[in-house]
Amino acid sequence: MAVLCRPAVWVPENTISMEETLALARRLHAGHQRLPLVLRMIKNTGVAKRHLVQPLAVTLTHPGFEARNRFYVREARARVPDVVKEALSSAEVTARDIDTIVFVSCTGFTMPPLTSWMINELGFRSNTRQIPIAQLGCAAGGAAVNRAHDFCRAYPGSNVLIVACEFCSLCYQPDDLDVGSLLSDGLFGDAIAAAVMRGSGGEGMELVGNASHLVPGTEDWIAYEVKATGFHFRLDKRVPGTMNVIAPALDTLAEAHGWDATDLDFYIIHAGGPRILDDLCGYLKVPPKAFRHSRATLTEYGNIASAVVFEALRRQFAEGLPPGARGLLAGFGPGITAESSLGTWVHSDRVRSGRRTGNVDALPVKLPVPPEPDRHSETPSPHKPKNRGSA
Amino acid sequence: MAVLCRPAVWVPENTISMEETLALARRLHAGHQRLPLVLRMIKNTGVAKRHLVQPLAVTLTHPGFEARNRFYVREARARVPDVVKEALSSAEVTARDIDTIVFVSCTGFTMPPLTSWMINELGFRSNTRQIPIAQLGCAAGGAAVNRAHDFCRAYPGSNVLIVACEFCSLCYQPDDLDVGSLLSDGLFGDAIAAAVMRGSGGEGMELVGNASHLVPGTEDWIAYEVKATGFHFRLDKRVPGTMNVIAPALDTLAEAHGWDATDLDFYIIHAGGPRILDDLCGYLKVPPKAFRHSRATLTEYGNIASAVVFEALRRQFAEGLPPGARGLLAGFGPGITAESSLGTWVHSDRVRSGRRTGNVDALPVKLPVPPEPDRHSETPSPHKPKNRGSA
Repeated sequence: MAVLCRPAVWVPENTISMEETLALARRLHAGHQRLPLVLRMIKNTGVAKRHLVQPLAVTLTHPGFEARNRFYVREARARVPDVVKEALSSAEVTARDIDTIVFVSCTGFTMPPLTSWMINELGFRSNTRQIPIAQLGCAAGGAAVNRAHDFCRAYPGSNVLIVACEFCSLCYQPDDLDVGSLLSDGLFGDAIAAAVMRGSGGEGMELVGNASHLVPGTEDWIAYEVKATGFHFRLDKRVPGTMNVIAPALDTLAEAHGWDATDLDFYIIHAGGPRILDDLCGYLKVPPKAFRHSRATLTEYGNIASAVVFEALRRQFAEGLPPGARGLLAGFGPGITAESSLGTWVHSDRVRSGRRTGNVDALPVKLPVPPEPDRHSETPSPHKPKNRGSA
Repeated sequence: MAVLCRPAVWVPENTISMEETLALARRLHAGHQRLPLVLRMIKNTGVAKRHLVQPLAVTLTHPGFEARNRFYVREARARVPDVVKEALSSAEVTARDIDTIVFVSCTGFTMPPLTSWMINELGFRSNTRQIPIAQLGCAAGGAAVNRAHDFCRAYPGSNVLIVACEFCSLCYQPDDLDVGSLLSDGLFGDAIAAAVMRGSGGEGMELVGNASHLVPGTEDWIAYEVKATGFHFRLDKRVPGTMNVIAPALDTLAEAHGWDATDLDFYIIHAGGPRILDDLCGYLKVPPKAFRHSRATLTEYGNIASAVVFEALRRQFAEGLPPGARGLLAGFGPGITAESSLGTWVHSDRVRSGRRTGNVDALPVKLPVPPEPDRHSETPSPHKPKNRGSA
């Protein structure tokens, strides 16, 4: 067994609202031929607010790839430890209990990966395995869950720490007038998430299966152009239409385990944008409120890349689920790759009492779904960003 | 079980000899205060020849990070397919049989990873899992073997393709006068390696265990500085001295399986440099010839980063081993991380005949070691580079 425990999520103190984003786009790209399209697309994201690792005025400057990447490292080292500690604490494990760290991040690049620094500084064992993934973008959240699950399958009883560190604002390219790049300027936000997958015990989503699916012929649809100025985001306008391929892949995964993807109790879906969520809702024949946690994440934080699924899962934990609830977690990103997994909700009392609370895999319950929150009202976050200086 | 099958290795047609390297260093850095030290270090590498993806004159120019990275992608797409096909063929599997691709490369950066392109173009299934690793440098060869092994443990009977694509010459930085960078200019070479790990059947190294070990407090000792000009290699002079920490970690791995790291039949060790090999020989109390394949790889190709262990393993295959031979494979790189594994040699006839050729794990054989080849005589490569234009 492998249980994905309660994630910890941190967002920076600096924010930018939809209104500020639109005003900025109007000011900075007044002469851009496709400005009306860009403004419409940004409005359509439904992103009410995003968080930024630097004040807005600094975010808008480009001090060079080198300086930005140095800042990425400094900020990650300053911020990751507290998020990791909270995730470890929520899972009731210590750093010494962790056998593998999966570190996913596509918004900065280091060699060695930050896992090496973490092992040295945060009390992990020297024989902790490191699985750093920098190239799967938003899909890396789902990929991290899946690689952690695979590891727990390979070594029953082991524990994996997942960290998703995304400072998307460090990929802002002021001189890039590509429409996909301009949309990304209004879509992505910054966040760090961490979660522990426990090989025994723990409360949360017990993984029962996972799968990867590549949408054929789309490797250029979501991509970085790598330049002296850093990573330039490229987005093909056909991307939102890929759910007609991904939905059947999710069906296939569910069917392989005797489940029905249209009839699950919870859905933790990558919030790449509203159209992706709307389309997938349609294909899976589930009501919009089934994706309420993903929608809330998108509205309040923007697309926080690989961290989305953990932020949405954090909301699912806050809402609560009865034992036996069955759900789907799916990350989508470059490739175009879908990394999805199925899981059953388990409570930790089965561990404390030394027995499971029932045959959770076989429970036929269909759980009531709470009413959908207003997408544009901001719900208070249980993990308030703290006002701390950068190290 | 998981058997690492015969690797395929490709090196480009362009070469540079030790003499040419030294002459270049003398010419380009005539005024450098530490030139004598650099020349001495390059001589000490024992690298007689290296292969380059571009002619030397082109290698020495820097057309910018963007152009270099585009070339990396173009060249990888042109060269990887044949290497992969040979690896699949050697393992007697097809692309459709592969469940996961582990792609390791630290000398170019793409998002999505090249695995997406491979799946689309080379006949792999859409549900092939992608594990791209860009941040573990030379250690990624050992890490790829270990992640493939873990995957086969998690899903018995599955097959993993490993690809190591390293165009180190694309990280040549003409203006970087750092001593570690100058040494790297004379040490690293280009190569692509691929190998299949079969979950059932196959001939080669049957993995019995793997481990990772981080040398504490050394995360800055082997590192990239990420700049507008690309990746700048940084090497601390204390790196060769780390074997006194890594050797005990190898002992620990062996002991965990009831083996003795000083008494194995074959050793496939990352050839980071001659001092690393010499020191590890000393610590493990094995004769220099035990590392003959790693030494030959270093002499003939230079340090080809994550591809070294596969090139050395290819030589081991060419030499042959009896069933039951026990060995160690170890990659070292940034972190400083050691990724090591133990395996027993198996022949494929046990599969064709439907039974194993004996209890290979329990065989107490100690195999004779062939005489050590002259480190500076070049043995003919069974995989001749082909003279083909870039696609």
